[in-house]
Amino acid sequence: MIIKLSPNPTEATIDRVSQWFSQQGVEARQVNLSGQTLFVTSSKWKGDPSELKTLEGVESIVNPGTEYQLCTRKFQEQNTVIDLGDGVVFGRGNTVMMAGPCAVESEDQVMRTAEFLRSKFDIKVFRAGAFKPRTSPYSFQGLADEGLKILDKVRDRFGMKIITEVKDTTHLDAVADVADIIQIGTKAMYNFSLLNFCGQMDKPIVLKRGFMTTIKEFLQGADFILSNGNSKVILCERGIRTFEPQTRFCLDVCAAALVKELSHLPIVLDPSHAMGIAAQVPLVAQSAAALGIDGLLVETHPDPANAKSDKEQALSFEQFSEMVSVLDKICTAVGRTLVA
Amino acid sequence: MIIKLSPNPTEATIDRVSQWFSQQGVEARQVNLSGQTLFVTSSKWKGDPSELKTLEGVESIVNPGTEYQLCTRKFQEQNTVIDLGDGVVFGRGNTVMMAGPCAVESEDQVMRTAEFLRSKFDIKVFRAGAFKPRTSPYSFQGLADEGLKILDKVRDRFGMKIITEVKDTTHLDAVADVADIIQIGTKAMYNFSLLNFCGQMDKPIVLKRGFMTTIKEFLQGADFILSNGNSKVILCERGIRTFEPQTRFCLDVCAAALVKELSHLPIVLDPSHAMGIAAQVPLVAQSAAALGIDGLLVETHPDPANAKSDKEQALSFEQFSEMVSVLDKICTAVGRTLVA
Amino acid sequence: MIIKLSPNPTEATIDRVSQWFSQQGVEARQVNLSGQTLFVTSSKWKGDPSELKTLEGVESIVNPGTEYQLCTRKFQEQNTVIDLGDGVVFGRGNTVMMAGPCAVESEDQVMRTAEFLRSKFDIKVFRAGAFKPRTSPYSFQGLADEGLKILDKVRDRFGMKIITEVKDTTHLDAVADVADIIQIGTKAMYNFSLLNFCGQMDKPIVLKRGFMTTIKEFLQGADFILSNGNSKVILCERGIRTFEPQTRFCLDVCAAALVKELSHLPIVLDPSHAMGIAAQVPLVAQSAAALGIDGLLVETHPDPANAKSDKEQALSFEQFSEMVSVLDKICTAVGRTLVA
Amino acid sequence: MIIKLSPNPTEATIDRVSQWFSQQGVEARQVNLSGQTLFVTSSKWKGDPSELKTLEGVESIVNPGTEYQLCTRKFQEQNTVIDLGDGVVFGRGNTVMMAGPCAVESEDQVMRTAEFLRSKFDIKVFRAGAFKPRTSPYSFQGLADEGLKILDKVRDRFGMKIITEVKDTTHLDAVADVADIIQIGTKAMYNFSLLNFCGQMDKPIVLKRGFMTTIKEFLQGADFILSNGNSKVILCERGIRTFEPQTRFCLDVCAAALVKELSHLPIVLDPSHAMGIAAQVPLVAQSAAALGIDGLLVETHPDPANAKSDKEQALSFEQFSEMVSVLDKICTAVGRTLVA
Repeated sequence: MIIKLSPNPTEATIDRVSQWFSQQGVEARQVNLSGQTLFVTSSKWKGDPSELKTLEGVESIVNPGTEYQLCTRKFQEQNTVIDLGDGVVFGRGNTVMMAGPCAVESEDQVMRTAEFLRSKFDIKVFRAGAFKPRTSPYSFQGLADEGLKILDKVRDRFGMKIITEVKDTTHLDAVADVADIIQIGTKAMYNFSLLNFCGQMDKPIVLKRGFMTTIKEFLQGADFILSNGNSKVILCERGIRTFEPQTRFCLDVCAAALVKELSHLPIVLDPSHAMGIAAQVPLVAQSAAALGIDGLLVETHPDPANAKSDKEQALSFEQFSEMVSVLDKICTAVGRTLVA
Repeated sequence: MIIKLSPNPTEATIDRVSQWFSQQGVEARQVNLSGQTLFVTSSKWKGDPSELKTLEGVESIVNPGTEYQLCTRKFQEQNTVIDLGDGVVFGRGNTVMMAGPCAVESEDQVMRTAEFLRSKFDIKVFRAGAFKPRTSPYSFQGLADEGLKILDKVRDRFGMKIITEVKDTTHLDAVADVADIIQIGTKAMYNFSLLNFCGQMDKPIVLKRGFMTTIKEFLQGADFILSNGNSKVILCERGIRTFEPQTRFCLDVCAAALVKELSHLPIVLDPSHAMGIAAQVPLVAQSAAALGIDGLLVETHPDPANAKSDKEQALSFEQFSEMVSVLDKICTAVGRTLVA
Repeated sequence: MIIKLSPNPTEATIDRVSQWFSQQGVEARQVNLSGQTLFVTSSKWKGDPSELKTLEGVESIVNPGTEYQLCTRKFQEQNTVIDLGDGVVFGRGNTVMMAGPCAVESEDQVMRTAEFLRSKFDIKVFRAGAFKPRTSPYSFQGLADEGLKILDKVRDRFGMKIITEVKDTTHLDAVADVADIIQIGTKAMYNFSLLNFCGQMDKPIVLKRGFMTTIKEFLQGADFILSNGNSKVILCERGIRTFEPQTRFCLDVCAAALVKELSHLPIVLDPSHAMGIAAQVPLVAQSAAALGIDGLLVETHPDPANAKSDKEQALSFEQFSEMVSVLDKICTAVGRTLVA
Repeated sequence: MIIKLSPNPTEATIDRVSQWFSQQGVEARQVNLSGQTLFVTSSKWKGDPSELKTLEGVESIVNPGTEYQLCTRKFQEQNTVIDLGDGVVFGRGNTVMMAGPCAVESEDQVMRTAEFLRSKFDIKVFRAGAFKPRTSPYSFQGLADEGLKILDKVRDRFGMKIITEVKDTTHLDAVADVADIIQIGTKAMYNFSLLNFCGQMDKPIVLKRGFMTTIKEFLQGADFILSNGNSKVILCERGIRTFEPQTRFCLDVCAAALVKELSHLPIVLDPSHAMGIAAQVPLVAQSAAALGIDGLLVETHPDPANAKSDKEQALSFEQFSEMVSVLDKICTAVGRTLVA
């Protein structure tokens, strides 16, 4: 249950609400979000809040009826809009193309990709990972800090926004220094300390759904960030694990369609990781774009055959170019603008 | 392995090849498909076919390298085209809308739906089930033969093609008498006797992927039909079962994208059963159409709230109408024509 | 909801109840089960049955509160006991070993296996399939009627009970002529016509859970058989399909444990199909037996390396022998008797 | 590929091997494990190591042929044995019962549980979490450092070993100060920084399989720890997520059976989280014990109805007691000793 206080509540008001909960033996978490002061209880609390409503300074009480609360349209009906400037707006009719290689491998590889994306398509958001959460300890783990420096140069030279992944809390500050958008990867979605720290940042966070995560847990993950005060959360569906061995994952378009209704947060899709096979990534990107979404994350590489990670799914520049022209038409067909 | 004989092979040629396999102790199935005479062995046979090539009357040998064989592009590169007339063509750039209620409930319900679909959109294929494979023995099981008679009237009155479902072999002949397209439902996909009998029909067969079925098994199902001589197989992805409880199934767009490459058979998608929630079905239909597919199966009902089966997913006529106008644009965007 | 009539109801009583439902516009199915006369409505019917209770000849009303009804302990608290004689009793503290090859391949192969099982362990139930539901049309499909004749000889020569599989309705009568226990395989579990016909038989039916079937649907499948009047249903958990590629399926011991509480029907487990790798089948059989179950289905073959189907999972006679001695101790540890 | 150097290699030897790889452009990681010096390459390296074998100081080369390497029986055939004293030995025929509540809630709750376990059964390992990875930000997150202090008292007062969970790297040192065994929970299994840090500890690590994790990824997780030098890794299967909604997870006994063959590491099972329903936890524990495993993790609570987390699955002391007496017999049946 969410208790919303009147704007600019006094200390006395906050204490009053806080004490009311203490007296009930109920834990309620104080949340400061988008200039609002809220108290949020566990959804399991089934007590009667009618007395609360009569307390001075309590504006309204919302019971979303679900375990995820702050991210729901029952709490906030209208879309959350996240505007990074230069047309990079999430939540207001744009579909923002975010593209780049899986990993930062070298300055040359990154710069060639960024130049292609910026000069040919005016792509505004560059994606690449400096910290790679690989399942093998013997695989390439990313260039780490050196990789971040290269990403910094991309912004300087091409004026692109940077989205890059944080694996865990050990390097969050370093990533936050460079990233315009911090990405929490699918394998980190249950790292609740990381979610909490990201909630204390003043940066947009792309939260990728875990590949075995229910919609409920995914939206609870968003609530971890929101309840720490950061309203700039972008949800990302990137494929779930199923019984099918011939595709890497399965892009869950049904879940994405439902999340659009359940939550006011922007949602972007990642066809590259879902499909895992470059030849089919453009088709899956088409399928994603037709849902009417806020953005796409697509992997492209100047030389896919020699990519150091996820080479099977990286589009060549030619494949990428063909894909964009079709996506452009699909976005128009569903009343959106492809930012690319 | 597939051994293709020269056109119009003599009995002697057929015997020669047949005997060659007998001598090797290998089972090879004779298949007459689209005017071709073929012998097909298990994919597990790893013998040397070089001697076979030298036999008189053997035209070529194809080893698709997979357990599904006749449905692959390695056997037939170009698309299979199934043309039922009146623009109802699968496999040649059209996206055919097939719509109607889940079940035949009454003549009135069916006729109202058919009239709406035909008069407002010129929908050419009407879908509805007379035999319903319900998971509860206490639920409505369909009108059976009476339902088929009503579907017959739809064709007579509106000139629509009829697609309707066969649950098992007990009523296949009755269904085949009425249906222009026979649908094998998701729960019947492993009914191999049914697949064999459908393979002996001269009607198009829509084969729905089981919701638990790998791409491999799905395509093997198609091979059951093809190897009995019926080349008119249309594949249908209709959602797989995953761990997610908030959606009915999960439309596997990644699998659909891959199947387009693997197989020469037409493919259609069913967003209604995948999503299971009417409000999101149009979005999922958009996502499906953007893949560039041969058709869509969508459920609509004059009074969804009182539908006797699957009422949660049936579109009202208003929802259906809005959806079609968007689908039309998406099909154009991906270079296709929506037949609706 | 289940309406139970007093024993030996008159026609008038049956009509009275039937008419009461007609007047309400509610469908209620008359069921004659184990000498009882019942009416069963859909679980979705939420009407008030209090007037029904006052009708002459109505003994009691049970609302199991679930979509499966006749199979629940809410309808029948005590275990269903199925006694085939010779110690082959399901539901009363025994764990019946049912063993044999996957498929009937030849008389020699079957007889050697039966002799081993009967002479060395006094195994009383022989399993082997004459009709094989293979996913490839080019694989061995079973010896069909010839296979059934061989199974008949096993009974004659060794006095063993025969359990064998029915794929679909086309050969049900032939199977029923030979089988002491009819097995509905995992791929046929949604073949509702088959379930209905099996419900009209006077033979025990082993109903295998579909490999992607929820407990709810599994128990609804049992209700299809029970509602046709056959009370002799034995449930079988045989492994579900998951994301894990290194095992064939995943034996769902948690579901089995829950089903024991939910249903009064006997339950047996099939470790062979679940594991799919012979070396580990004995461990999984141990795990199954420790649940305290009514039986086990295990595949063994005189020459696994040359088995015509499922050779990876067939135990050699040596492996089988070692397994049985451990299973015997485990059954004792959980207060049961291994019938082997 | 694993290159094993002769015992106590000189700096020169290490340099020689290291330079050989540098010259090939291949990354090889130096690993010091159990007094051995190893170099491990990615499993993707397909180069010819024959020249390597001739280098002075190279003892042997092992190619496990899988992406997990150090944990395999191909690298080390015999079981890894982890002996904590007082009979708490993993990997040598014991099945160690590790029991306690889900979370440390209060000193009283913990002490009552520990007293029950120690006095009634001589349970030697106490489990309880001070840091709880809850999916809701509004749920009880654990007592943190205060919880650890309470666990310290359990050891002091009852002489029990402590196993407790680490959520992420932020509190690893605090946990390590108190824990005799550090548990990496299912949601942290992909936290590779955490795995790396745990690999630098001199404490046994229980690595729980992620509920979405393949056997391959699970064993790769173990290799993260091993390759950092910590040989004391205990694997834990605790249930995977499937399509079944009526059980919390599905204990993957097939995977556990296979892992016993693939890896030399001890394996323990957690029936409580897998089943999620207290009434069935003992049955599932029986099923787990019958696999012949090195330990069990079971949740018990003095007052399950009022537990602050996972109350549905906590056994009452009565349920726990009954379970142990059956488990004792099952362990004996499979040739093991229950340490409880």
